[in-house]
Amino acid sequence: MNYPDKVYINGQIVNPEDAKVSVFDRGFIFGDGLYEVMVQINGKFFYEKKHLERLQSGLDKINIDFDAALLPNEIARLLKTAQLTDKDCMLYIQITRGVAPRQHSYPSEIKPTVMMYAVPKVLPKINMVNAHVITRKDFRWSRCDIKMTSLLGNVMLNEEAMQHNCYETILHRNGVFTEASHCNVFFVKNGVVYTHKADEYILNGITRIVVIELCNSLGIEIRETAISLSEINTIDEAFLTGTSTQIAAIQQIDDYKIYTGNEKGPVTQRLQEAFLKLK
Amino acid sequence: MNYPDKVYINGQIVNPEDAKVSVFDRGFIFGDGLYEVMVQINGKFFYEKKHLERLQSGLDKINIDFDAALLPNEIARLLKTAQLTDKDCMLYIQITRGVAPRQHSYPSEIKPTVMMYAVPKVLPKINMVNAHVITRKDFRWSRCDIKMTSLLGNVMLNEEAMQHNCYETILHRNGVFTEASHCNVFFVKNGVVYTHKADEYILNGITRIVVIELCNSLGIEIRETAISLSEINTIDEAFLTGTSTQIAAIQQIDDYKIYTGNEKGPVTQRLQEAFLKLK
Repeated sequence: MNYPDKVYINGQIVNPEDAKVSVFDRGFIFGDGLYEVMVQINGKFFYEKKHLERLQSGLDKINIDFDAALLPNEIARLLKTAQLTDKDCMLYIQITRGVAPRQHSYPSEIKPTVMMYAVPKVLPKINMVNAHVITRKDFRWSRCDIKMTSLLGNVMLNEEAMQHNCYETILHRNGVFTEASHCNVFFVKNGVVYTHKADEYILNGITRIVVIELCNSLGIEIRETAISLSEINTIDEAFLTGTSTQIAAIQQIDDYKIYTGNEKGPVTQRLQEAFLKLK
Repeated sequence: MNYPDKVYINGQIVNPEDAKVSVFDRGFIFGDGLYEVMVQINGKFFYEKKHLERLQSGLDKINIDFDAALLPNEIARLLKTAQLTDKDCMLYIQITRGVAPRQHSYPSEIKPTVMMYAVPKVLPKINMVNAHVITRKDFRWSRCDIKMTSLLGNVMLNEEAMQHNCYETILHRNGVFTEASHCNVFFVKNGVVYTHKADEYILNGITRIVVIELCNSLGIEIRETAISLSEINTIDEAFLTGTSTQIAAIQQIDDYKIYTGNEKGPVTQRLQEAFLKLK
Protein backbone atom coordinates (compact mmCIF):
# COMPACT_ATOMS: atom_id res chain seq x y z
CA MET A 1 0.00 0.00 0.00
CA ASN A 2 1.23 3.47 -0.87
CA TYR A 3 0.12 6.97 -0.01
CA PRO A 4 -1.75 8.84 -2.75
CA ASP A 5 -0.04 11.70 -4.62
CA LYS A 6 -2.70 14.19 -3.60
CA VAL A 7 -5.20 14.52 -0.78
CA TYR A 8 -8.35 16.64 -0.76
CA ILE A 9 -9.07 18.20 2.60
CA ASN A 10 -11.92 20.71 3.02
CA GLY A 11 -11.56 22.16 -0.47
CA GLN A 12 -7.73 22.21 -0.52
CA ILE A 13 -5.75 19.71 -2.56
CA VAL A 14 -2.38 19.05 -0.92
CA ASN A 15 0.50 16.62 -0.84
CA PRO A 16 -0.04 13.68 1.53
CA GLU A 17 2.59 14.90 4.01
CA ASP A 18 0.63 18.16 4.31
CA ALA A 19 -2.77 16.47 4.69
CA LYS A 20 -3.55 17.04 8.32
CA VAL A 21 -6.55 17.52 10.56
CA SER A 22 -6.91 19.05 13.98
CA VAL A 23 -6.51 16.61 16.84
CA PHE A 24 -9.89 18.04 17.92
CA ASP A 25 -11.56 16.71 14.79
CA ARG A 26 -14.28 14.42 16.08
CA GLY A 27 -13.14 11.89 13.49
CA PHE A 28 -9.90 11.57 15.48
CA ILE A 29 -11.37 11.86 18.99
CA PHE A 30 -14.62 9.89 18.61
CA GLY A 31 -14.47 8.02 15.27
CA ASP A 32 -17.44 10.28 14.53
CA GLY A 33 -17.54 9.96 10.75
CA LEU A 34 -18.46 7.93 7.69
CA TYR A 35 -16.60 6.72 4.61
CA GLU A 36 -17.07 5.36 1.12
CA VAL A 37 -14.76 3.61 -1.31
CA MET A 38 -15.51 3.75 -5.05
CA VAL A 39 -13.59 2.45 -8.04
CA GLN A 40 -13.28 4.18 -11.38
CA ILE A 41 -13.21 1.79 -14.32
CA ASN A 42 -13.06 2.86 -17.95
CA GLY A 43 -13.44 6.52 -16.95
CA LYS A 44 -16.55 6.03 -14.84
CA PHE A 45 -17.15 5.41 -11.17
CA PHE A 46 -18.83 2.06 -10.76
CA TYR A 47 -22.31 2.62 -9.27
CA GLU A 48 -21.36 6.14 -8.11
CA LYS A 49 -24.98 7.09 -7.56
CA LYS A 50 -25.60 4.17 -5.20
CA HIS A 51 -22.42 4.97 -3.22
CA LEU A 52 -23.36 8.61 -2.81
CA GLU A 53 -26.93 7.71 -1.88
CA ARG A 54 -25.67 5.36 0.81
CA LEU A 55 -23.32 8.06 2.10
CA GLN A 56 -26.17 10.57 2.27
CA SER A 57 -28.36 8.05 4.03
CA GLY A 58 -25.62 7.45 6.63
CA LEU A 59 -25.04 11.19 7.13
CA ASP A 60 -28.75 11.60 7.76
CA LYS A 61 -28.82 8.68 10.20
CA ILE A 62 -26.09 10.15 12.41
CA ASN A 63 -27.17 13.76 11.90
CA ILE A 64 -24.13 15.14 10.03
CA ASP A 65 -25.32 18.12 8.02
CA PHE A 66 -23.63 17.64 4.64
CA ASP A 67 -24.97 17.34 1.11
CA ALA A 68 -23.26 14.48 -0.73
CA ALA A 69 -24.43 16.03 -4.02
CA LEU A 70 -21.57 18.53 -3.57
CA LEU A 71 -19.01 15.76 -3.96
CA PRO A 72 -18.89 14.95 -7.72
CA ASN A 73 -17.48 18.41 -8.62
CA GLU A 74 -14.88 18.16 -5.88
CA ILE A 75 -13.99 14.60 -6.91
CA ALA A 76 -13.42 15.83 -10.48
CA ARG A 77 -11.07 18.60 -9.19
CA LEU A 78 -9.16 16.09 -7.08
CA LEU A 79 -8.77 13.62 -9.94
CA LYS A 80 -7.60 16.38 -12.28
CA THR A 81 -4.91 17.57 -9.84
CA ALA A 82 -3.87 13.97 -9.13
CA GLN A 83 -3.76 13.32 -12.91
CA LEU A 84 -6.22 10.48 -12.53
CA THR A 85 -9.12 11.85 -14.62
CA ASP A 86 -10.49 8.87 -16.56
CA LYS A 87 -7.79 6.59 -15.11
CA ASP A 88 -8.62 3.36 -13.31
CA CYS A 89 -8.40 4.27 -9.66
CA MET A 90 -9.83 3.81 -6.21
CA LEU A 91 -11.37 6.80 -4.46
CA TYR A 92 -11.67 7.06 -0.67
CA ILE A 93 -14.10 9.59 0.82
CA GLN A 94 -14.33 10.35 4.55
CA ILE A 95 -16.71 12.83 6.14
CA THR A 96 -16.48 13.52 9.85
CA ARG A 97 -18.65 15.66 12.05
CA GLY A 98 -15.94 18.34 12.30
CA VAL A 99 -13.80 20.09 14.88
CA ALA A 100 -14.92 21.03 18.41
CA PRO A 101 -13.57 20.91 21.97
CA ARG A 102 -13.94 17.35 23.21
CA GLN A 103 -17.23 16.31 24.72
CA HIS A 104 -19.62 13.58 23.61
CA SER A 105 -22.37 16.03 22.62
CA TYR A 106 -21.62 18.18 19.60
CA PRO A 107 -22.41 21.83 18.85
CA SER A 108 -25.26 22.38 16.38
CA GLU A 109 -23.13 24.75 14.26
CA ILE A 110 -20.25 22.34 13.63
CA LYS A 111 -18.83 22.18 10.09
CA PRO A 112 -18.09 18.72 8.66
CA THR A 113 -14.57 17.74 7.59
CA VAL A 114 -14.30 16.28 4.08
CA MET A 115 -11.22 14.24 3.19
CA MET A 116 -10.73 12.35 -0.08
CA TYR A 117 -7.93 10.79 -2.06
CA ALA A 118 -7.55 8.59 -5.09
CA VAL A 119 -4.89 6.01 -5.88
CA PRO A 120 -4.31 4.30 -9.22
CA LYS A 121 -5.83 0.85 -9.07
CA VAL A 122 -6.48 -1.62 -11.82
CA LEU A 123 -8.81 -4.29 -10.54
CA PRO A 124 -8.31 -7.74 -12.05
CA LYS A 125 -11.07 -8.48 -14.57
CA ILE A 126 -12.16 -11.38 -12.40
CA ASN A 127 -10.85 -11.72 -8.85
CA MET A 128 -8.80 -14.92 -9.02
CA VAL A 129 -8.42 -15.15 -5.25
CA ASN A 130 -9.61 -18.44 -3.86
CA ALA A 131 -9.85 -17.27 -0.31
CA HIS A 132 -9.23 -19.08 2.94
CA VAL A 133 -11.34 -17.54 5.68
CA ILE A 134 -11.80 -18.03 9.39
CA THR A 135 -15.06 -17.64 11.33
CA ARG A 136 -15.47 -15.57 14.46
CA LYS A 137 -18.27 -14.30 16.65
CA ASP A 138 -19.30 -10.79 15.61
CA PHE A 139 -18.68 -8.54 18.62
CA ARG A 140 -19.21 -5.29 16.71
CA TRP A 141 -22.12 -2.95 17.33
CA SER A 142 -25.56 -3.72 15.95
CA ARG A 143 -25.77 -0.73 13.61
CA CYS A 144 -23.54 -2.25 10.93
CA ASP A 145 -25.82 -0.61 8.34
CA ILE A 146 -23.93 2.64 9.10
CA LYS A 147 -20.59 2.78 7.26
CA MET A 148 -18.76 4.55 10.06
CA THR A 149 -15.08 5.17 10.72
CA SER A 150 -15.35 3.76 14.30
CA LEU A 151 -13.80 0.60 12.96
CA LEU A 152 -11.68 -0.85 15.76
CA GLY A 153 -13.90 -3.94 15.92
CA ASN A 154 -13.46 -4.55 12.18
CA VAL A 155 -9.71 -3.98 12.50
CA MET A 156 -9.44 -6.54 15.33
CA LEU A 157 -11.53 -9.13 13.47
CA ASN A 158 -9.59 -8.59 10.24
CA GLU A 159 -6.32 -8.91 12.16
CA GLU A 160 -7.29 -12.41 13.28
CA ALA A 161 -7.53 -13.41 9.61
CA MET A 162 -4.08 -11.91 8.98
CA GLN A 163 -2.61 -13.89 11.89
CA HIS A 164 -4.01 -17.07 10.34
CA ASN A 165 -2.73 -16.14 6.87
CA CYS A 166 -6.31 -15.86 5.72
CA TYR A 167 -8.03 -13.38 3.41
CA GLU A 168 -10.95 -12.55 5.65
CA THR A 169 -12.85 -13.31 8.82
CA ILE A 170 -16.49 -14.20 8.31
CA LEU A 171 -18.68 -13.29 11.22
CA HIS A 172 -21.61 -14.89 12.97
CA ARG A 173 -24.10 -13.49 15.42
CA ASN A 174 -27.01 -15.28 17.09
CA GLY A 175 -25.92 -18.49 15.40
CA VAL A 176 -25.98 -17.27 11.80
CA PHE A 177 -23.44 -15.83 9.39
CA THR A 178 -23.84 -12.09 8.83
CA GLU A 179 -20.96 -10.62 6.80
CA ALA A 180 -17.14 -10.42 6.93
CA SER A 181 -14.81 -7.83 8.48
CA HIS A 182 -14.85 -5.71 5.31
CA CYS A 183 -16.84 -7.76 2.76
CA ASN A 184 -20.28 -9.29 2.43
CA VAL A 185 -20.54 -13.07 2.29
CA PHE A 186 -22.73 -15.32 0.13
CA PHE A 187 -23.29 -19.08 0.21
CA VAL A 188 -24.63 -21.47 -2.43
CA LYS A 189 -26.52 -24.62 -1.54
CA ASN A 190 -28.36 -26.84 -4.02
CA GLY A 191 -28.16 -24.10 -6.64
CA VAL A 192 -29.75 -21.45 -4.39
CA VAL A 193 -27.74 -18.37 -3.35
CA TYR A 194 -28.07 -17.25 0.30
CA THR A 195 -26.97 -14.08 2.06
CA HIS A 196 -27.98 -12.34 5.28
CA LYS A 197 -30.78 -9.84 4.81
CA ALA A 198 -29.88 -6.14 4.78
CA ASP A 199 -30.77 -5.27 8.35
CA GLU A 200 -28.75 -3.62 11.13
CA TYR A 201 -26.30 -6.53 11.39
CA ILE A 202 -24.68 -5.99 7.99
CA LEU A 203 -23.57 -3.22 5.70
CA ASN A 204 -25.63 -3.35 2.55
CA GLY A 205 -22.65 -3.43 0.19
CA ILE A 206 -23.05 -1.99 -3.28
CA THR A 207 -21.47 -5.12 -4.78
CA ARG A 208 -23.90 -7.16 -2.63
CA ILE A 209 -26.83 -5.27 -4.19
CA VAL A 210 -25.39 -5.79 -7.68
CA VAL A 211 -24.90 -9.53 -7.11
CA ILE A 212 -28.51 -9.89 -5.96
CA GLU A 213 -29.65 -8.05 -9.11
CA LEU A 214 -27.44 -10.33 -11.21
CA CYS A 215 -28.94 -13.45 -9.62
CA ASN A 216 -32.40 -12.17 -10.46
CA SER A 217 -31.51 -11.33 -14.04
CA LEU A 218 -29.72 -14.66 -14.57
CA GLY A 219 -32.60 -16.65 -13.10
CA ILE A 220 -30.50 -17.89 -10.17
CA GLU A 221 -32.64 -18.24 -7.07
CA ILE A 222 -31.48 -15.81 -4.37
CA ARG A 223 -32.73 -15.79 -0.78
CA GLU A 224 -31.87 -13.09 1.71
CA THR A 225 -31.81 -15.72 4.41
CA ALA A 226 -28.86 -16.31 6.71
CA ILE A 227 -26.91 -19.56 6.75
CA SER A 228 -26.51 -20.98 10.25
CA LEU A 229 -23.28 -22.14 11.86
CA SER A 230 -24.47 -25.74 11.79
CA GLU A 231 -25.15 -25.61 8.03
CA ILE A 232 -21.66 -24.52 7.08
CA ASN A 233 -20.40 -28.02 6.25
CA THR A 234 -23.31 -28.55 3.85
CA ILE A 235 -22.73 -25.61 1.53
CA ASP A 236 -21.58 -26.14 -2.04
CA GLU A 237 -20.02 -22.73 -2.72
CA ALA A 238 -19.27 -19.50 -0.88
CA PHE A 239 -17.95 -16.13 -2.00
CA LEU A 240 -17.10 -12.69 -0.70
CA THR A 241 -18.17 -9.41 -2.29
CA GLY A 242 -16.88 -5.87 -1.93
CA THR A 243 -15.86 -2.84 -3.93
CA SER A 244 -12.25 -3.89 -4.41
CA THR A 245 -12.80 -7.60 -3.69
CA GLN A 246 -15.49 -7.71 -6.42
CA ILE A 247 -16.54 -11.37 -6.22
CA ALA A 248 -13.93 -13.65 -4.62
CA ALA A 249 -14.51 -17.38 -4.33
CA ILE A 250 -13.98 -18.91 -0.89
CA GLN A 251 -11.89 -22.08 -0.98
CA GLN A 252 -11.83 -22.97 2.70
CA ILE A 253 -13.78 -21.91 5.81
CA ASP A 254 -11.83 -22.77 8.98
CA ASP A 255 -11.04 -26.47 8.42
CA TYR A 256 -13.82 -27.06 5.92
CA LYS A 257 -12.39 -27.32 2.41
CA ILE A 258 -14.97 -26.35 -0.21
CA TYR A 259 -12.46 -26.93 -3.03
CA THR A 260 -9.20 -28.80 -2.85
CA GLY A 261 -7.57 -26.98 -5.76
CA ASN A 262 -8.18 -23.77 -7.63
CA GLU A 263 -11.50 -24.81 -9.09
CA LYS A 264 -14.59 -22.69 -8.51
CA GLY A 265 -18.26 -23.52 -8.17
CA PRO A 266 -20.47 -23.02 -11.24
CA VAL A 267 -22.67 -20.34 -9.61
CA THR A 268 -19.70 -18.29 -8.40
CA GLN A 269 -18.20 -18.48 -11.88
CA ARG A 270 -21.43 -17.46 -13.62
CA LEU A 271 -21.79 -14.46 -11.32
CA GLN A 272 -18.17 -13.42 -11.81
CA GLU A 273 -18.58 -13.54 -15.59
CA ALA A 274 -21.84 -11.59 -15.49
CA PHE A 275 -20.29 -9.04 -13.09
CA LEU A 276 -17.41 -8.50 -15.52
CA LYS A 277 -19.84 -7.50 -18.26
CA LEU A 278 -21.26 -4.66 -16.15
CA LYS A 279 -18.04 -2.67 -16.40
CA MET B 1 -16.17 23.75 26.60
CA ASN B 2 -12.94 25.46 25.54
CA TYR B 3 -9.80 24.33 23.81
CA PRO B 4 -6.76 23.84 26.03
CA ASP B 5 -3.87 26.32 25.91
CA LYS B 6 -1.37 23.64 24.96
CA VAL B 7 -1.49 20.25 23.27
CA TYR B 8 1.12 17.50 23.49
CA ILE B 9 1.56 15.63 20.25
CA ASN B 10 4.30 13.01 19.89
CA GLY B 11 6.73 14.81 22.18
CA GLN B 12 6.01 18.34 20.89
CA ILE B 13 3.97 20.80 22.92
CA VAL B 14 2.11 23.20 20.65
CA ASN B 15 -0.78 25.64 20.57
CA PRO B 16 -4.16 24.02 19.89
CA GLU B 17 -4.43 25.52 16.38
CA ASP B 18 -1.13 23.80 15.51
CA ALA B 19 -2.08 20.45 17.03
CA LYS B 20 -2.62 18.33 13.97
CA VAL B 21 -2.29 14.73 12.89
CA SER B 22 -1.97 13.15 9.48
CA VAL B 23 -5.28 12.21 7.87
CA PHE B 24 -3.62 8.79 7.54
CA ASP B 25 -3.42 8.42 11.30
CA ARG B 26 -5.39 5.26 12.03
CA GLY B 27 -7.04 7.17 14.86
CA PHE B 28 -8.71 9.32 12.18
CA ILE B 29 -9.33 6.61 9.57
CA PHE B 30 -10.30 3.65 11.79
CA GLY B 31 -10.92 4.99 15.31
CA ASP B 32 -7.96 2.72 16.07
CA GLY B 33 -6.94 4.08 19.44
CA LEU B 34 -7.58 4.33 23.16
CA TYR B 35 -8.02 7.18 25.62
CA GLU B 36 -7.99 8.03 29.31
CA VAL B 37 -9.25 11.00 31.29
CA MET B 38 -7.70 11.80 34.68
CA VAL B 39 -8.26 14.66 37.09
CA GLN B 40 -5.61 16.37 39.16
CA ILE B 41 -6.82 17.44 42.60
CA ASN B 42 -4.63 19.07 45.22
CA GLY B 43 -1.56 18.57 43.06
CA LYS B 44 -2.06 14.86 42.49
CA PHE B 45 -3.75 12.82 39.79
CA PHE B 46 -6.59 10.91 41.37
CA TYR B 47 -5.85 7.17 41.04
CA GLU B 48 -3.24 7.82 38.34
CA LYS B 49 -1.78 4.33 38.72
CA LYS B 50 -5.13 2.63 38.06
CA HIS B 51 -5.74 4.82 34.97
CA LEU B 52 -2.33 4.04 33.51
CA GLU B 53 -2.72 0.34 34.29
CA ARG B 54 -6.06 0.28 32.50
CA LEU B 55 -4.54 2.10 29.54
CA GLN B 56 -1.67 -0.41 29.36
CA SER B 57 -4.11 -3.30 29.60
CA GLY B 58 -6.13 -1.84 26.69
CA LEU B 59 -3.01 -1.27 24.58
CA ASP B 60 -2.04 -4.90 25.14
CA LYS B 61 -5.54 -6.12 24.25
CA ILE B 62 -5.52 -4.38 20.87
CA ASN B 63 -1.81 -4.93 20.24
CA ILE B 64 -0.56 -1.31 20.24
CA ASP B 65 3.10 -1.41 21.18
CA PHE B 66 3.45 1.44 23.67
CA ASP B 67 4.67 1.60 27.26
CA ALA B 68 2.31 3.70 29.38
CA ALA B 69 5.09 4.04 31.97
CA LEU B 70 6.63 6.63 29.64
CA LEU B 71 3.67 8.97 30.19
CA PRO B 72 4.18 10.50 33.67
CA ASN B 73 7.35 12.38 32.61
CA GLU B 74 5.63 13.67 29.48
CA ILE B 75 2.54 14.66 31.45
CA ALA B 76 4.75 16.65 33.83
CA ARG B 77 6.35 18.45 30.84
CA LEU B 78 2.93 19.23 29.37
CA LEU B 79 1.55 20.56 32.67
CA LYS B 80 4.63 22.73 33.16
CA THR B 81 4.31 24.31 29.71
CA ALA B 82 0.57 24.73 30.18
CA GLN B 83 1.22 26.30 33.61
CA LEU B 84 -0.97 23.71 35.25
CA THR B 85 1.58 21.94 37.45
CA ASP B 86 -0.17 21.25 40.77
CA LYS B 87 -3.32 23.01 39.52
CA ASP B 88 -6.71 21.34 39.54
CA CYS B 89 -7.18 20.18 35.97
CA MET B 90 -8.48 17.47 33.70
CA LEU B 91 -5.99 15.55 31.55
CA TYR B 92 -6.98 13.80 28.34
CA ILE B 93 -4.65 11.14 26.89
CA GLN B 94 -5.17 9.52 23.48
CA ILE B 95 -2.93 6.86 21.96
CA THR B 96 -3.61 5.66 18.44
CA ARG B 97 -1.93 2.94 16.46
CA GLY B 98 -0.14 5.49 14.27
CA VAL B 99 0.13 6.54 10.65
CA ALA B 100 0.02 4.19 7.64
CA PRO B 101 -1.59 4.02 4.19
CA ARG B 102 -5.19 2.95 4.67
CA GLN B 103 -5.95 -0.74 4.91
CA HIS B 104 -7.55 -2.66 7.75
CA SER B 105 -4.39 -4.63 8.57
CA TYR B 106 -1.56 -2.59 10.04
CA PRO B 107 2.20 -2.78 9.49
CA SER B 108 4.16 -4.37 12.34
CA GLU B 109 6.59 -1.44 12.50
CA ILE B 110 3.98 1.27 13.01
CA LYS B 111 4.75 3.97 15.62
CA PRO B 112 1.89 4.99 17.95
CA THR B 113 0.62 8.57 18.05
CA VAL B 114 0.41 10.12 21.53
CA MET B 115 -1.81 13.17 22.05
CA MET B 116 -2.54 14.78 25.41
CA TYR B 117 -3.89 18.02 26.76
CA ALA B 118 -4.95 19.42 30.10
CA VAL B 119 -7.61 22.01 30.88
CA PRO B 120 -8.17 23.76 34.20
CA LYS B 121 -11.06 22.08 35.95
CA VAL B 122 -12.23 22.39 39.51
CA LEU B 123 -14.62 19.58 40.26
CA PRO B 124 -17.38 20.41 42.74
CA LYS B 125 -16.61 18.81 46.11
CA ILE B 126 -19.76 16.79 45.76
CA ASN B 127 -21.58 16.55 42.45
CA MET B 128 -24.88 18.28 43.17
CA VAL B 129 -26.45 17.14 39.92
CA ASN B 130 -29.67 15.28 40.45
CA ALA B 131 -29.76 13.71 37.03
CA HIS B 132 -32.65 12.87 34.77
CA VAL B 133 -31.72 9.95 32.53
CA ILE B 134 -33.34 8.04 29.72
CA THR B 135 -32.94 4.33 29.02
CA ARG B 136 -32.01 2.84 25.66
CA LYS B 137 -31.00 -0.52 24.24
CA ASP B 138 -27.23 -0.81 24.11
CA PHE B 139 -26.32 -1.29 20.45
CA ARG B 140 -22.58 -0.80 20.93
CA TRP B 141 -20.03 -3.55 20.48
CA SER B 142 -19.55 -6.22 23.13
CA ARG B 143 -15.98 -5.30 24.05
CA CYS B 144 -16.92 -2.29 26.16
CA ASP B 145 -14.05 -3.24 28.50
CA ILE B 146 -11.74 -1.59 25.91
CA LYS B 147 -11.69 2.21 26.30
CA MET B 148 -11.42 2.88 22.59
CA THR B 149 -11.86 6.03 20.53
CA SER B 150 -14.30 4.26 18.13
CA LEU B 151 -17.08 6.01 20.00
CA LEU B 152 -19.79 6.77 17.45
CA GLY B 153 -22.22 4.46 19.29
CA ASN B 154 -21.59 6.29 22.57
CA VAL B 155 -21.97 9.65 20.80
CA MET B 156 -25.34 8.60 19.31
CA LEU B 157 -26.64 7.25 22.63
CA ASN B 158 -25.46 10.34 24.51
CA GLU B 159 -27.10 12.56 21.90
CA GLU B 160 -30.47 11.00 22.64
CA ALA B 161 -30.10 12.16 26.25
CA MET B 162 -29.24 15.68 25.02
CA GLN B 163 -32.35 15.73 22.82
CA HIS B 164 -34.45 14.86 25.88
CA ASN B 165 -32.67 17.48 28.03
CA CYS B 166 -31.27 14.65 30.11
CA TYR B 167 -27.85 14.17 31.70
CA GLU B 168 -27.21 10.66 30.46
CA THR B 169 -28.58 7.60 28.67
CA ILE B 170 -28.47 4.42 30.72
CA LEU B 171 -28.15 1.32 28.61
CA HIS B 172 -29.60 -2.15 28.75
CA ARG B 173 -28.62 -5.31 26.95
CA ASN B 174 -30.20 -8.76 27.23
CA GLY B 175 -32.81 -7.30 29.57
CA VAL B 176 -30.45 -5.85 32.17
CA PHE B 177 -28.84 -2.47 32.79
CA THR B 178 -25.16 -2.37 31.93
CA GLU B 179 -23.72 1.17 32.10
CA ALA B 180 -24.38 4.62 30.62
CA SER B 181 -23.03 6.31 27.46
CA HIS B 182 -20.01 7.68 29.35
CA CYS B 183 -20.59 6.73 33.00
CA ASN B 184 -21.17 3.61 35.06
CA VAL B 185 -24.51 3.18 36.79
CA PHE B 186 -25.38 1.87 40.26
CA PHE B 187 -28.73 1.09 41.86
CA VAL B 188 -29.74 0.77 45.52
CA LYS B 189 -32.54 -1.54 46.63
CA ASN B 190 -33.33 -2.39 50.26
CA GLY B 191 -29.97 -1.00 51.35
CA VAL B 192 -27.98 -3.15 48.92
CA VAL B 193 -25.94 -1.54 46.13
CA TYR B 194 -26.08 -3.19 42.68
CA THR B 195 -24.00 -2.67 39.57
CA HIS B 196 -23.29 -4.76 36.46
CA LYS B 197 -20.25 -6.98 36.82
CA ALA B 198 -17.03 -5.89 35.10
CA ASP B 199 -17.26 -8.07 32.01
CA GLU B 200 -17.13 -7.22 28.30
CA TYR B 201 -20.41 -5.26 28.40
CA ILE B 202 -19.09 -2.40 30.52
CA LEU B 203 -16.01 -0.30 30.99
CA ASN B 204 -14.61 -0.94 34.45
CA GLY B 205 -14.52 2.72 35.47
CA ILE B 206 -11.93 3.82 38.00
CA THR B 207 -14.63 5.65 39.98
CA ARG B 208 -16.71 2.44 39.77
CA ILE B 209 -13.83 0.50 41.36
CA VAL B 210 -13.43 3.17 44.04
CA VAL B 211 -17.16 3.14 44.87
CA ILE B 212 -17.11 -0.64 45.26
CA GLU B 213 -14.11 -0.32 47.60
CA LEU B 214 -15.95 2.39 49.55
CA CYS B 215 -19.03 0.18 49.93
CA ASN B 216 -16.84 -2.56 51.33
CA SER B 217 -15.04 -0.27 53.76
CA LEU B 218 -18.30 1.35 54.90
CA GLY B 219 -20.01 -2.01 55.42
CA ILE B 220 -22.59 -1.33 52.69
CA GLU B 221 -23.51 -4.55 50.91
CA ILE B 222 -22.44 -4.39 47.26
CA ARG B 223 -23.39 -6.94 44.63
CA GLU B 224 -21.93 -6.98 41.13
CA THR B 225 -25.29 -8.17 39.85
CA ALA B 226 -27.23 -6.41 37.12
CA ILE B 227 -30.65 -4.85 37.72
CA SER B 228 -33.21 -5.96 35.14
CA LEU B 229 -35.51 -3.72 33.15
CA SER B 230 -38.52 -5.01 35.03
CA GLU B 231 -37.00 -4.15 38.41
CA ILE B 232 -36.41 -0.49 37.61
CA ASN B 233 -39.61 0.74 39.27
CA THR B 234 -38.67 -0.99 42.51
CA ILE B 235 -35.29 0.65 43.15
CA ASP B 236 -34.80 3.10 46.00
CA GLU B 237 -31.79 5.03 44.70
CA ALA B 238 -29.60 5.18 41.60
CA PHE B 239 -26.42 7.06 40.77
CA LEU B 240 -23.89 7.53 38.01
CA THR B 241 -20.12 7.40 38.43
CA GLY B 242 -17.28 8.66 36.28
CA THR B 243 -14.04 10.60 36.44
CA SER B 244 -15.61 14.04 36.05
CA THR B 245 -19.13 13.00 37.09
CA GLN B 246 -17.72 11.60 40.36
CA ILE B 247 -20.93 10.32 42.01
CA ALA B 248 -24.12 11.91 40.65
CA ALA B 249 -27.52 11.04 42.09
CA ILE B 250 -30.19 10.07 39.56
CA GLN B 251 -33.50 11.80 40.19
CA GLN B 252 -35.58 10.35 37.39
CA ILE B 253 -35.25 7.39 34.99
CA ASP B 254 -37.53 7.85 31.96
CA ASP B 255 -40.90 8.55 33.63
CA TYR B 256 -40.01 6.95 36.94
CA LYS B 257 -39.34 9.66 39.56
CA ILE B 258 -37.03 8.40 42.30
CA TYR B 259 -37.12 11.78 44.05
CA THR B 260 -39.60 14.58 43.56
CA GLY B 261 -37.30 17.35 44.75
CA ASN B 262 -33.58 17.74 45.25
CA GLU B 263 -33.32 15.20 48.04
CA LYS B 264 -30.93 12.29 47.78
CA GLY B 265 -31.02 8.73 49.04
CA PRO B 266 -29.05 7.96 52.21
CA VAL B 267 -26.69 5.46 50.53
CA THR B 268 -25.85 7.86 47.67
CA GLN B 269 -25.16 10.58 50.20
CA ARG B 270 -22.95 8.38 52.39
CA LEU B 271 -20.91 7.33 49.37
CA GLN B 272 -20.56 10.91 48.14
CA GLU B 273 -19.28 12.02 51.53
CA ALA B 274 -16.85 9.12 51.80
CA PHE B 275 -15.65 9.76 48.21
CA LEU B 276 -14.95 13.40 49.08
CA LYS B 277 -12.58 12.35 51.87
CA LEU B 278 -10.39 10.39 49.43
CA LYS B 279 -9.19 13.55 47.71
